[in-house]
Amino acid sequence: MTAPGDVVAAYWAAAATRDWDAFGDLVAEDVVYEGPQTRERIRGRAAYVRFNVEGFPGDWRLRVVRIIGEGRGAASWIDFTNADGTTQPGLCFFELNDDNRIARITDFWPDPYELPAQRAHLVERF
Amino acid sequence: MTAPGDVVAAYWAAAATRDWDAFGDLVAEDVVYEGPQTRERIRGRAAYVRFNVEGFPGDWRLRVVRIIGEGRGAASWIDFTNADGTTQPGLCFFELNDDNRIARITDFWPDPYELPAQRAHLVERF
Repeated sequence: MTAPGDVVAAYWAAAATRDWDAFGDLVAEDVVYEGPQTRERIRGRAAYVRFNVEGFPGDWRLRVVRIIGEGRGAASWIDFTNADGTTQPGLCFFELNDDNRIARITDFWPDPYELPAQRAHLVERF
Repeated sequence: MTAPGDVVAAYWAAAATRDWDAFGDLVAEDVVYEGPQTRERIRGRAAYVRFNVEGFPGDWRLRVVRIIGEGRGAASWIDFTNADGTTQPGLCFFELNDDNRIARITDFWPDPYELPAQRAHLVERF
């Protein structure tokens, strides 16, 4: 398993099944996670696994929409469904190290927003 | 220019320089654009170029942070700076057709949000 897209697919499969040992083994010991929207950062495998186990309680589930990998990088788009049934897209950019472990994760969670009036006449709605 | 990442790089370069002829030539005649956050959709090259020209007035600029391409797909992460100096990440997923034109674009604009209290003890801030 060397293609970055395969590593990211295994990462999401491990998260989806709460296989935290497999999940932890897919990230580097010195992994760095950043969420630019909240300006939150986590450093290191142990802290990152703990963040995933404790930071997202409840019966969530996820579905991979798209994974794209190239070189040592990858991007993923998932749909994340909370216990209350609401679904939100989650978008990540990854960098892998030479051991094919995920060394850097940048995570984005776009929320719905109102269509700006200035472009309302230029689009249809779905 | 056949790699999807190269097509997307040219797409952003054309947008950044307001070269709308080049921009239009990089997308398929039947391109479909979707913004899931507002549930907006645009169909066709002419409508999509018009959307870009008229929908985003003002002296914005953009910087490509990352482009990843694989197969007929690509993902990009840009920083988009408005005339008022505020910068927001923009994330796109692309699908190319057999002519190496962009046939489908899904566009996300994540906004800042408050760090949820349930995970505040698990992260540092930057």
